[in-house]
Amino acid sequence: MFEKVLIANRGEIALRIHRACREMGIATVAVHSTADADAMHVRLADESVCIGPPPSSKSYLNIPAILSSATLTGADAIHPGVGFLSENARFAEMVEEHGITFIGPTSEHIAMMGDKVRAKVAAKELGLPVVPGSEGAVTSFEDARSIAGDAGYPVLIKASAGGGGRGMKVARNEGELQDAYRMARNEAKSAFGNDEVYLEKYLQKPRHIEVQILADGKGGAIHMGERDCSLQRRHQKVLEEALSPALNAEERHRIGEIARQAILKMGYESAGTLEFLYEDGEFFFIEMNTRLQVEHPISEAITGIDLVREQIRVAAGHPLPFSQEDVSFSGHAVECRINAEHPKTFAPSPGQIKEYHPPGGLGVRVDSAIFGGYRVPPHYDSLIAKLVVHGQTRNECLMRLRRALGEMVIEGIETTLPLHRDLVNDPDFINGDYDIHWLEHWMGERD
Amino acid sequence: MFEKVLIANRGEIALRIHRACREMGIATVAVHSTADADAMHVRLADESVCIGPPPSSKSYLNIPAILSSATLTGADAIHPGVGFLSENARFAEMVEEHGITFIGPTSEHIAMMGDKVRAKVAAKELGLPVVPGSEGAVTSFEDARSIAGDAGYPVLIKASAGGGGRGMKVARNEGELQDAYRMARNEAKSAFGNDEVYLEKYLQKPRHIEVQILADGKGGAIHMGERDCSLQRRHQKVLEEALSPALNAEERHRIGEIARQAILKMGYESAGTLEFLYEDGEFFFIEMNTRLQVEHPISEAITGIDLVREQIRVAAGHPLPFSQEDVSFSGHAVECRINAEHPKTFAPSPGQIKEYHPPGGLGVRVDSAIFGGYRVPPHYDSLIAKLVVHGQTRNECLMRLRRALGEMVIEGIETTLPLHRDLVNDPDFINGDYDIHWLEHWMGERD
Repeated sequence: MFEKVLIANRGEIALRIHRACREMGIATVAVHSTADADAMHVRLADESVCIGPPPSSKSYLNIPAILSSATLTGADAIHPGVGFLSENARFAEMVEEHGITFIGPTSEHIAMMGDKVRAKVAAKELGLPVVPGSEGAVTSFEDARSIAGDAGYPVLIKASAGGGGRGMKVARNEGELQDAYRMARNEAKSAFGNDEVYLEKYLQKPRHIEVQILADGKGGAIHMGERDCSLQRRHQKVLEEALSPALNAEERHRIGEIARQAILKMGYESAGTLEFLYEDGEFFFIEMNTRLQVEHPISEAITGIDLVREQIRVAAGHPLPFSQEDVSFSGHAVECRINAEHPKTFAPSPGQIKEYHPPGGLGVRVDSAIFGGYRVPPHYDSLIAKLVVHGQTRNECLMRLRRALGEMVIEGIETTLPLHRDLVNDPDFINGDYDIHWLEHWMGERD
Repeated sequence: MFEKVLIANRGEIALRIHRACREMGIATVAVHSTADADAMHVRLADESVCIGPPPSSKSYLNIPAILSSATLTGADAIHPGVGFLSENARFAEMVEEHGITFIGPTSEHIAMMGDKVRAKVAAKELGLPVVPGSEGAVTSFEDARSIAGDAGYPVLIKASAGGGGRGMKVARNEGELQDAYRMARNEAKSAFGNDEVYLEKYLQKPRHIEVQILADGKGGAIHMGERDCSLQRRHQKVLEEALSPALNAEERHRIGEIARQAILKMGYESAGTLEFLYEDGEFFFIEMNTRLQVEHPISEAITGIDLVREQIRVAAGHPLPFSQEDVSFSGHAVECRINAEHPKTFAPSPGQIKEYHPPGGLGVRVDSAIFGGYRVPPHYDSLIAKLVVHGQTRNECLMRLRRALGEMVIEGIETTLPLHRDLVNDPDFINGDYDIHWLEHWMGERD
């Protein structure tokens, strides 16, 4: 096992990784910017190194400074956390070149899944379902009809050169296809001077469903069920739940096994997430995140598996200590991302926290690196706390979440706590009746 | 289900019960002394009533004031919590006489188990193992030899009028019995003017093992495994763990079933605890607590059962929603009782908390009603926080406990945090190698 791990991150995720290391008897090295000198991840680490000033490009993204810190402190592994350098294949490669273990997948897998085009090709080869449609341009109406018939209606016809909805038409059935095809080409021609179009299945109200996987690269691989992350604002997740209220047992098993088989085929090693759109019982691969995710605690809550511990064990060469049959799902979990932002305008709200009181009691976990008197710096991501609640059923979980949100105190700055307090009382949310567009509509009506 | 529950308690246990009510959609009424007007259990409750000044006899033990508060606020049930009136049979009876549900067992069961003599008789009838020995006085050496033979050596011969160790002799085998019997009688005679002695099996290094039970009085009854509460100072529990590191699977199953059968036979309704001494594979009943216990969260952690929720459900007339086969034990849990006391002298340390920062992250639960700026009043029990940690194995749990204790901050008053930080690093504790006398010896050597 490693003796010392350098954590190349900040905030709650750095603290999360520090905790896993501390619980495994591994010493920790914190790196920090000048703005984070008194941050909790620095206070609690065994050693710390200042790697430069804000912005992140000069510190948390400063590869030479991070590598020097690891060498200077004698760290034998680096955990990149979430964001920053966590999906930087070149960083992973350089870490390994320095004789230090990168706690994550191989740089090849990071590079492959970080490139949209390569990732889509790989996904198909790995047996992952992708949005059906034409491979490249559709050159005739007959082609369009044949591809649309295979993909299933409704379909979307899109200008290859398009953007912003122009040259984009929906056909709900074969009767609408001819007009839609013609109009899309005409619009594309007039808007972009190019009438090339392509066609794909149109997902009207998809959900964002992602499968947490964990593999040792030695034939051991599990999925930890799915997370429903459909509640997004500008593609930023706001509240996540596991398991998804939308899937039935067959769908859950099916997508879990598809994900597990894919990573086994890849020879993937470490934790990762396969993201899908889901509609009407079908899944469509979007992308793979070759790292830990912010919302990983809800998967931990329902499986009892410590994902960061297992990431570290796998990186140290250990096989996974369990197989898929050992993974059982217990109850329901929800995570609320508490951001230092105005709850309606979402304007960042850095500044000093006057009072901080996290909720406690049964089934409540708080991951946060803030404390009373802490000054939230203006330079970084606004996530300051993750409230993770577990219950035996979804209803129990939501009741507990409401009481925990009611107890939580963060004073001195604006936070998104009021947004969450409203959201968890909304009837659609309570019914689990939402898709990836729902939250923005809801926020619009709320104003 | 109840609409409104009055919580006849204060501090963390009042908050614990409030949380369960809130999560069940039940309104809460806090009662409080004048010293607790700004306490968290008052702040968070839906309603609150001041029931008098300290000391407790004028407020938290003031039955008329509590009953009036319940009537005035229209509460349909009262939860007595832990301590105060929780084992007062007369209170339970009066609550029911007022047409209000007492959340706990019947007043008959409270009265029976609250009377040492009746409890021991009942225990035998219920098939609970008791310390073997003479029934009353031993009148001849032949009697003594026969009873000692049945009980098994070593045995203790004790003056019936005795106390403080005088007139008390241990015989390790039959050869020692004659002298011990004679000397005990002589000492008893000279010390108390009465040579009557009795004999019982001598437990040298017993552990305190207690079984958590839960029953609906309708034929539904489970045990939730045992807790090891051997780490005590002056009969006050300091740190508890579940399951016990001393029991094997057969012993666990055996004592659990004995406890379960006993409460079924009693027709017991609600949560309760059967306390035993344990030595060399044998259990000896001490007493039954007919209430919730401070250390209940460790049983919740390993079973996933919310004890307070189930207490409330049972009191409202619902059958238990699970049977013994549904109860499975997962991992290991430890509770540290953090008291507002000097960690070496144990002198009470009331006063204002300047900074409070509870630990968070995976597997950590904190039950506490303190907050930054809160003034711990001098009038009550010194328990101010319970740190409850769960892990997949005992070792994982202890590693997590160390890191959580390391993160926890309570400044402004003295607390027993430093005691716990030392205790969890002691080799005997780590090996689970301790009995009910161990902690006091350890503290003596530590001075």
